[in-house]
Formats: sequence, C-alpha cells, structure tokens
Amino acid sequence: MLSNKIKNMLNKQSAIRMMFSEGIRLKKELGEDKVFDFTLGNPSVHPPIEVEKAILNVLKENPTYVHGYMNNAGYPKVRQNIAAYLNKKFDCEYTENNIIMTVGAAGGLNVIFNTLLNPDDEVIVLAPYFMEYNAYVSNYNGKLVVVPPNPPSFSLNVDAIKQAITKNTKALIINNPNNPTGAIYSEEEIKELASLLSLAQKEYNHPIFLVSDEPYRELAYDNVSVPYLPKYYNNTLVVYSYSKTLSLPGERIGYITLGANCVNKEKLFDALVISNRILGFVNAPSLMQLVIGECLDITVDTNIYKKNRDLLYSSLIDIGYEAMLPKGAFYLFLKSPFEDDNKFVEMAKKYGILFVSGNAFGCRGYVRLSYCTSYETIEKSIPSFKMLF
Amino acid sequence: MLSNKIKNMLNKQSAIRMMFSEGIRLKKELGEDKVFDFTLGNPSVHPPIEVEKAILNVLKENPTYVHGYMNNAGYPKVRQNIAAYLNKKFDCEYTENNIIMTVGAAGGLNVIFNTLLNPDDEVIVLAPYFMEYNAYVSNYNGKLVVVPPNPPSFSLNVDAIKQAITKNTKALIINNPNNPTGAIYSEEEIKELASLLSLAQKEYNHPIFLVSDEPYRELAYDNVSVPYLPKYYNNTLVVYSYSKTLSLPGERIGYITLGANCVNKEKLFDALVISNRILGFVNAPSLMQLVIGECLDITVDTNIYKKNRDLLYSSLIDIGYEAMLPKGAFYLFLKSPFEDDNKFVEMAKKYGILFVSGNAFGCRGYVRLSYCTSYETIEKSIPSFKMLF
Repeated sequence: MLSNKIKNMLNKQSAIRMMFSEGIRLKKELGEDKVFDFTLGNPSVHPPIEVEKAILNVLKENPTYVHGYMNNAGYPKVRQNIAAYLNKKFDCEYTENNIIMTVGAAGGLNVIFNTLLNPDDEVIVLAPYFMEYNAYVSNYNGKLVVVPPNPPSFSLNVDAIKQAITKNTKALIINNPNNPTGAIYSEEEIKELASLLSLAQKEYNHPIFLVSDEPYRELAYDNVSVPYLPKYYNNTLVVYSYSKTLSLPGERIGYITLGANCVNKEKLFDALVISNRILGFVNAPSLMQLVIGECLDITVDTNIYKKNRDLLYSSLIDIGYEAMLPKGAFYLFLKSPFEDDNKFVEMAKKYGILFVSGNAFGCRGYVRLSYCTSYETIEKSIPSFKMLF
Repeated sequence: MLSNKIKNMLNKQSAIRMMFSEGIRLKKELGEDKVFDFTLGNPSVHPPIEVEKAILNVLKENPTYVHGYMNNAGYPKVRQNIAAYLNKKFDCEYTENNIIMTVGAAGGLNVIFNTLLNPDDEVIVLAPYFMEYNAYVSNYNGKLVVVPPNPPSFSLNVDAIKQAITKNTKALIINNPNNPTGAIYSEEEIKELASLLSLAQKEYNHPIFLVSDEPYRELAYDNVSVPYLPKYYNNTLVVYSYSKTLSLPGERIGYITLGANCVNKEKLFDALVISNRILGFVNAPSLMQLVIGECLDITVDTNIYKKNRDLLYSSLIDIGYEAMLPKGAFYLFLKSPFEDDNKFVEMAKKYGILFVSGNAFGCRGYVRLSYCTSYETIEKSIPSFKMLF
C-alpha cells in the first residue's frame, strides 16, 4: 500500500516513538518533576514582544493583501528588505532576486535538493549531522556521503572532506553553528573548505554547491563570530530560518539566499521558485512573511540560552564528564562514558534523564543534550547526573 | 547543474511567464482599465471579519504556545475540533487520528503521493484537470493517466475511467467542485465511481485510493449539494484547504482527512505524518491552525462569486458563446469558437481579454475564465467579448 521509502522510515520511526512513549512512562513512574528531558530542540525562550506588535501592525496597515497569494518567491518588498539587511550586515550586493522566502529551513533544503539532484548525485554531510538530511536528500534520490566525525573538537576535517569528493558530488551541507555539537567553524576552516571546493569544481568541471543551513546563526555566545559563507565561496546557498532566532518554529518561515556571484544565478533562481511551487509549499506563509519583514534586526534573548549552557557545561565538567564547550546553538555534545552511547541513554533513563544518542547523528560514543529547557530543569537534574556518573 | 525534471519544467515555465509579461505589456499598450484579466485563481472576496478576530483572540488566549512546534500532525485540539465539525456536518465518526493538518491542499497532495507512490504507480486524473497534478505525481516518480474530457456536460465518464484502470493504479484524483469546469458531480455519478473502484480493488487485490481535492467545497451555488466522498468509498483521502473558503490562499493552511473505514488506517496515518515532516513541511503553520480552529463554520460571502458567475455566464450566452453553467468554484469553461483554443487566447488579447487555454488543463477547444475578479471588471469586459465574437 505504501511507497517503499516511507515503509522503511516507518520501521525506523518506531524506535523514536518508543523513546517518546518511554518519556511519558518515566514521568508516570518517577513523577513529572523527577524526569529531566533534554531531547527536544523546541525553543524555550518566548518570541520577542516585537513579533506580536508586528502581527497587529501588519493586520492594521495592509488589510487588503495580508493573506493573499503573492509571487511564489515571496513578497518583493519583504525580499528587498531582507536583501538590504544582509547587504548592511555582511557587506554583500543582494537584490530581491537573491532571496526566496521558504516554509522554514526544512522547506528550503527540500526546495534546493529537488532543484539540484539527479538520481545518484552525491551530497556530502559532516558527522555528526542533523538526521533529517538523510530524508531531504533521499527524497530526490540523491546519495548522502558521510564524512566521519572529528572529535573531540569537531572542527572541519578538510582532508577527510577531500576524500569524500567524487565526480558525482553536487553539494556539501554545512550547519554552522552546528547541531548537535554546538561547534562554530572558524574563518580559517571555512577558507580551507572554500579553496578545496573551488579546486574540485575545476577538476570535475561542474558546480559544487555549499549549502549552509543556518537556523542557529544568531545563537553564538562569547562574541564568537559566525563566518558568512557567501563571502568565501560563490556557489553558496544559505538556508535561513526564524524558528530559533525569533522562536517561531511552528510558523515555518525562512528563506534561501543565492550567492550574489553564484553560477547561472537567474536560471537557478527560477528553478528554485518552481520547486517551491510544485513541491506544494507554493509560497511561505504570507502573514509571517510580512511580520518577519518588520523584525529583521530583532532576536530572542540569547542570554537565557547562554546561562543554561554555562550551568549545564560547568556542572557536568565538575562532575567529571567530558564535553566541548558549545560556542553556539543550544546543544551540548557529551562524551558517553561507554563506547556504546545507546547503553548510556538507557542507563540515564533510570535516573530520569532523557537525551538522544550520538548514533542518531552518525557519531557513536556521544549523546546530545538540548539546553533549550528551563534553567530550573538543569539545576534540578545535576544530582541525577552525579548519580549517573 | 539542475535536476532533469526541473530543467524540463523551466522550459515549459517560460511559456506561462511570457503570457504574464504579455499581460503587463497589454496594460501599458491599451491602458490599465481596458485590460480584463480572467487568468488568476486568487480570491477577490476578503476574508471574513471572524478571521482577524480569531487571530487577535489566539494571540491573547494562548501566548505560550501560539508559535511553537506541536505534533507533526497538528495541534490535537484543532484536529479534534475539525473531527467534531465534520462528524456533525456529514454524520461521520472521525477522531483527531483521521485529521492531519497540512500546508494547504498543494502540501496535502504532495504528502499523499509521497506516501503512496512507488515508481511507475499510476494516478488517474479526469481531463480537464488542474495542471499542477502533473508535478505532484511526477515528484514521486508516479505516472499520470489522463481520462479524456467529457464535453459538454463534463460529467463523470465512468466507462472511460474503467478503461484507464490497470494493475498499477494506485489512486484517482477527483476535484469537486471542479477547476476549470465548475462542474459538481452528482450522488449518482459518485456511487457509480465508487462501485467501479471497489470492483477494481478486488480484481487487482490492492487498495486504490480516491483522492478528493476539495478547496472549492463551500463554493457551490443554487443549493447544489456536493457529495461527501468518504460516505460512498472507504479508501477516500479528502484534501481540504482554507484558501478559498476563508480567502487565505497565502497562509497555506488545510488538512487531509482519512476515511473512518480506510484500509490500514493507523499505519497510513503514521506514514502521512512522516511524509509531512520529511518533505520539509514539518507542520502546518501554527498560528493559522489555531485560527481556523476558531472559524470552522465560517465561509466567505459566496454570493459575491454567484453574482459574478450570473453576470458573466448570462452575458456570454446572450452574445452567442457556448458554455456549461458552472455549479461551483469560480471558473467558467467557455467553448472556443475555433478548434484551436490557443488561437482564441491570442485573438482575445487583441481586445484586452486574458484567459487561459483549455489545453493547459488537458482539454483542447475550451478556455478557462476565472470570475474571482471584481463585478466591475466583468461588466466592463462585455463589450470587448462582443467584439471578439
């Protein structure tokens, strides 16, 4: 009855669903306040007040076209505003024709891979990586090529990336700041990567796209700067989302940026817009387009996440755990005391602690803790982490 | 650089784009008020005032979760409300597990075909049909099988459908009320279709799904009733959208209904929810889910469309044109005075009249006029239609 692809996913899904049920079971068994859930990436910080103000303002100012169709690429005025904002921030030369509004970053990535991939084209990802990339590439019959993890710093391993490139390489996904490690790649690493990709493009005589998945861009701590990739590599497609920046994950609003000097830019723009339409997105939600157009320089209070990070990281290190200090996003990638991280996940449950195995991100021997939870949850969990150690 | 599928679409796209440019050129040449554009399906009637009230109410009542993630199937409460609404309206037995919130009907159709289709599975459509169905099926490597048009009534030709069914038939799309004809299939026609499909399921020993695309359900005139397909055929998936019912096309909000007695219902539900996630929709826009949850029994003022229909239809018939009276939707399917409908489209442009060739819907010899325009546009266009005749 079902497509074979979905049938396979349905079997895998059951494992995740079982873990979810396990959480519910645990809460019943141990009590709600004795379960510490670090599994979810759902922002705990409220959207800035400016978002609600913008909604009210948009409804008041533009009653005639708030909810209507527009160009499949999005409202020209919103795209112009985003282009101007990026030009100022990153010293670029964008126009509205570099911006395509999308149904979140997940929508943007699907639009890109539908546009680029022929069967068996290869897309390189760097482990550990967001597991949904598997589906986003296999949806279009592409082949995911995984570069092994580079612990304990999880910095870019350019030699390993070089080995992964073949004549079939169509794109490489980078997630900066990274989910699940919280790593932020430095300018030097990015320059090395850019020069590797440029050489590979020449060698194989076709474009290789750098797809930069940036939902966590504004979540960078301690004044670490996140390099803006289109400055270093022309064929960069940035996928942006307001899910974390403005805590609007349910609204599905984001955009794709085409590098100002991207190859065959006009054709690629048209193709991306067609993909957006035929995949059934049609256009990004209209009210939210207008709303984010009024909130471009607003972000959530990232200090809340920083405080969570500092408490969780320092407490776990004090206990004796090993981890890299996350520079961005809201995840901490903890070394499992055992080689088998699934065993660690199982043991943690006995202490009411829930987190995700590194295996689910293509990196054994680690687990991912989401600290987009309340400060109190972290505080209360520490004794349990001590017992678990 | 691009995927072959998109490359092909890019070539076709240029023709539509040229027509769009032609419209702009015409307005410059003849003057804005001498061009009568009947090409677009963008609702001309404003959303009911209840929509804005609901937005304000949702923001006020649910500040903590308005914009967050929820279950990929949508808010349970909203799905429960929709189920209760449908149970009351159509005497069904739905629960929240029959409803999956989607990014509009286009999103819903993509989710369904990603879930069901293996390469070369066949999906039957009845010409004339909404041209995007081509892409929605070929996105998942399915094969579209087109049943020839049945003019002048455009009623269901069950014999022709019977001939189109093979062992590879996975689904049949029905669009009721129909775009572009405005036809509404009667209970008798639907019963005949249901019995044909039931026999075919037995013969080939696998489910055949009836996919009912219903964005125009509430746009039915003269008290004609639109049969509710799940009452007649168990394996029905209804794809609903608020784009026309509430004039919210830009917001991308709709849902899929699984028939209460659909085969393998639980598994299919899970599979549809996974598809919704991995295709990058993730979930239907969250604020709008809550808003439509408060507007279930509200529709736009359909009288406005009815008045438009009556004026356009009677004026064109008076002139001597041939057409079927549309019973629903907001399209009129006019017989072209020439066999070649493209020639008619070209001639009409000279009189400032823009409409779409029937060829674009798989039906030569006709053209589609959208009357979701202003009453004044229709009034002013009549002399030009006279000259064109």
